[in-house]
Formats: sequence, structure tokens, C-alpha cells
Amino acid sequence: MTQPRRDFLRHMAAAGLAGSAAGAIRAAEPAPAAKADAVLTHDMSAFPPEWLGKEQIAMLIYPEFTALDLVGPHYMFTSLWGAKVHLVAASKEPVRSDAGLSFIPDLTLAEAPADLDILFVPGGSQGTLKVMQDPKQIAWIADRARRAKLIASVCTGAMILGQAGLLRGKRATTHWATHALLKDFGAVPVDERVVWDGTLVTGAGVSAGLDLGLSVVARLRDKPYAQGVQLLAEYAPQPPFNAGTPKTAPTDVHRMMGSMFDALRADMRASAKTALGS
Amino acid sequence: MTQPRRDFLRHMAAAGLAGSAAGAIRAAEPAPAAKADAVLTHDMSAFPPEWLGKEQIAMLIYPEFTALDLVGPHYMFTSLWGAKVHLVAASKEPVRSDAGLSFIPDLTLAEAPADLDILFVPGGSQGTLKVMQDPKQIAWIADRARRAKLIASVCTGAMILGQAGLLRGKRATTHWATHALLKDFGAVPVDERVVWDGTLVTGAGVSAGLDLGLSVVARLRDKPYAQGVQLLAEYAPQPPFNAGTPKTAPTDVHRMMGSMFDALRADMRASAKTALGS
Repeated sequence: MTQPRRDFLRHMAAAGLAGSAAGAIRAAEPAPAAKADAVLTHDMSAFPPEWLGKEQIAMLIYPEFTALDLVGPHYMFTSLWGAKVHLVAASKEPVRSDAGLSFIPDLTLAEAPADLDILFVPGGSQGTLKVMQDPKQIAWIADRARRAKLIASVCTGAMILGQAGLLRGKRATTHWATHALLKDFGAVPVDERVVWDGTLVTGAGVSAGLDLGLSVVARLRDKPYAQGVQLLAEYAPQPPFNAGTPKTAPTDVHRMMGSMFDALRADMRASAKTALGS
Repeated sequence: MTQPRRDFLRHMAAAGLAGSAAGAIRAAEPAPAAKADAVLTHDMSAFPPEWLGKEQIAMLIYPEFTALDLVGPHYMFTSLWGAKVHLVAASKEPVRSDAGLSFIPDLTLAEAPADLDILFVPGGSQGTLKVMQDPKQIAWIADRARRAKLIASVCTGAMILGQAGLLRGKRATTHWATHALLKDFGAVPVDERVVWDGTLVTGAGVSAGLDLGLSVVARLRDKPYAQGVQLLAEYAPQPPFNAGTPKTAPTDVHRMMGSMFDALRADMRASAKTALGS
């Protein structure tokens, strides 16, 4: 066993590596004394040394965001061995999702690392519009994006990136209900689930975060690593119906769900006129 | 427009219906005065009255659980119009997931409704084992399960149900890494992503919670409703690789990831000998 691999094992043991490779987020941190004798439950000695990274990842959360937009990619990002994943918000107060889950942020906007490997933004509806209309958060996103190695969004999070002027001339996607708005932000709308354009990667609605997250993991590590994470997540989806897109859903179901967003679309379109760089 | 439909609209407006149908969780609650003049952003007048339910749903969380096990089904359950979804934990302290997300519980075990429509348990690894070894939480699960209309788990959450004696003679599934342990709890192991047996529904690993959640929504409402929720989640998954199960993943990837769970499997197997009803 090589020296680096033994070091990994030591780190793993020190971190008390909780569950899943997800716990690997803490692997490269200094060993907390209290956990120094924790039992090693996950033997990761087969992991090649080059799989240990040191990414700084910031995931923005805000009132009424959609939790699944965040948690799908979070599972994948925290599976990046050695990466540090921060939940960033306007304050340290608990942030309540649109469906009532309360998350505790790690860092305020000011505290978040200046130079990020990944800047990530989830979507929502009214809460997302509020971020679009908040100059402070939009300025923070524009600032961090200037140096970030990767800029990512899921669902209507793309509207926030658009508001910060980050979609201009870029191929991008978003939730089907706001897809027509991409042009308002100067983007080239693409009807795909995950769209890469240079350092920008955007996902379609909500559950597309799992596909986007795995795609990012493959980009930052390699294919076997991403396959390992996929296997850990047992990501072999079997939706009970074929209704996940406007094209495949019954027409009346599409019409009914689409009409729920008429007001939001109008508000977001109005907001687009004030976008950075517009 | 019928009277009930107008009532729904009023409730929706009163709740300020945030984002997604997920916000519908609050639809049937009394209108908070402060929000009485909130703008109606989601027009749900096309929803037939029979889509409004009043389910009481308890989702157990515990230290080091896997967040995605919870948040996939949570998205689906909170899309049940009128349902109340509670995060239940041993105390009201924030509960940290295995990948470092901190959630705030709504209710303690004692505070959770006695009669539930759904009792749900997510998985994890070391944290899950600790719940299995905690007589208080196991007794709570056994008690609530006695009257619950539906008992559900995702991933290794099935091991907790097994510990509470709820899998004996039942067809069930769990994460591939612990699938062989189902027999230790007297279950009939089934190699499917979502397995129904009477009032018990179990999901495979982590991401299977999305399939399970939608399957439950279809059971509690109807097919068009579940299709609407699937469309809202844009759940038309496209995993970048075909490595989501032990059968489809490359052999060496499977071997590497599987070996991470040797110790956990042994500990859970030992725990099975003390299961309720064993």
C-alpha cells in the first residue's frame, strides 16, 4: 500500500466516515481529536490517490427554494472525495424551502470563499423571483462567478444566473415552465436535460439535479468514479409514468400544471429587463 | 366555478402559495392573517375537489441519515394537496445528515400524531445502525406502525423497519449493499426498485425514493395527479452512465463500492438477532 493511500485511510478513520462516500467531504479535513479513535467503517483503500480533490463548492440557498433542486446535486458534490461543500445564504438563520424543510446555512455571502470551484444555484418560484430582485445576492453571484471554475444551476436557478448576466450568448436549459424565458436573458435555449457551455452547466427542472450532479462528478474525477457514485445512489430510475416532460405528459396535465406559472413567468420576464449586462 | 373550488383558491391565496405544488402542503391550513392579501401566483382552480386530502405524514430523521433518501419522497408527499408532512426526530435539535446538511425537526417522537397515514423512514449507514440499536426509536416505530395506513422506507431505512419487526413475512427491498440482510429480518427479498406488500412499501437505494414517492402519490390520489407531480419535478431522468445497479455497473466498480460496507453489514446482521418479533 502506497503512502498516500495509507494517509487516506488515516483521514477516513479520523473522520469517522459516517455513511456513504458522501461522508468523504470531511475526509481531507484535520482529524478532530475527539474522533481520532473512531472505527473505520468504509475501506476506501482501493481509491487511487488522484481521486482526492480539494474543491471549494458554494451552494446558495434562499427562502422558498426547492429542496430537491439542492439535495440531488449536493449528494453528488459531497461524494467528491476531499471537496468542501458550503451552504451559503444571506444570513445564518435557518432557510425554509418552499415545501417547509428548514436548512441551516454554513456561511453568509460575505464568508463564502472568494475563489470557487463550483458556484451552484437551485430554483424555486416566488423565492427565486425574490433573489432575482435582490441586488445584493445578484451582485454576489456575479462576483463569485467571475472567478468560479464552474457555474451551475438546476431548474429556475438558471433565471437567477440570467439575472446576474451569466447566460448571455450561452447555451442553457431550465425548468420547462420557464424555458421560454431563457431568450429574455440572452441565452440560447436548449431542450436537453443537462446543458454544458464552457464553464456553465445548467439542468432542467428539479430532478435533473441528479443527472447534472453526476455529470459534474464525471467531469471533475473520471468515469469509474462517477459510476461508483451512481451505484452508491442506486441511480437506476424507474418513473412509474412517462409524464416527466411537456412532450410526454398528457396534454391536459401539461396545460393544468403550466397554467400555475402564468403569473410567475410574467414577473420573471419583467425582471429580465433589469438583468446585469442587458 | 363550484364552491369547493373557490374555497381552494382562497386557501391557496391565503397561503401565499410559494413554489411548486409542494407549497400545497399549507393549502388546507387556516389562513395566517399576515398573508391574507398575498398574491395568488398558482391558479389551481382546475384541480378537482377530490384531490384535496388531509393525510398526516411523519418522516423520521436521525443523525447521519442520507438526505436524498428523505428529500425525494418529501417532494412527492408534500405535493399531496392538503397533506401535512412532519419531520420527526428524537429531539428538536437540528439533525445533521451523513453529508453535512442540517435539518430542523418539526416534532419530537412524543409529539408526532398517534395515527398516521404514512410512516416513513430514510436510510444511511452508521446512523441507521444507531437507530436500530436504540430501543426508544424502535418502540416508537413499532407503535406508530401498528396504526399507520402506510409504512414506507427508502434505502437502508428498511433495516430499521426490520428491527421493529415490520418486515416479517413481507416482500421488501433495500439498498443493494444490504439486500442480503432482508432475510435476517424474516423478509422475502425482492429485486425491484419499489416493492409493495399490503400497507408496506419499500424502495431500493437512495434515489429510489423518487420512484417510491410518485408511486405513493398515485396510490393516494390518481394517475393524472401523479403525472402532474412528475411533470412538475420534470422527472424524466437521464443518468449519464448505466451503472446504477450491481448488475449494470462494471464489476470492479461494484466490488470497490461493495467492500465499503463489509463492517456495516456485519453489524446490522448482528443487530437483526435482537429484532422485535424475532
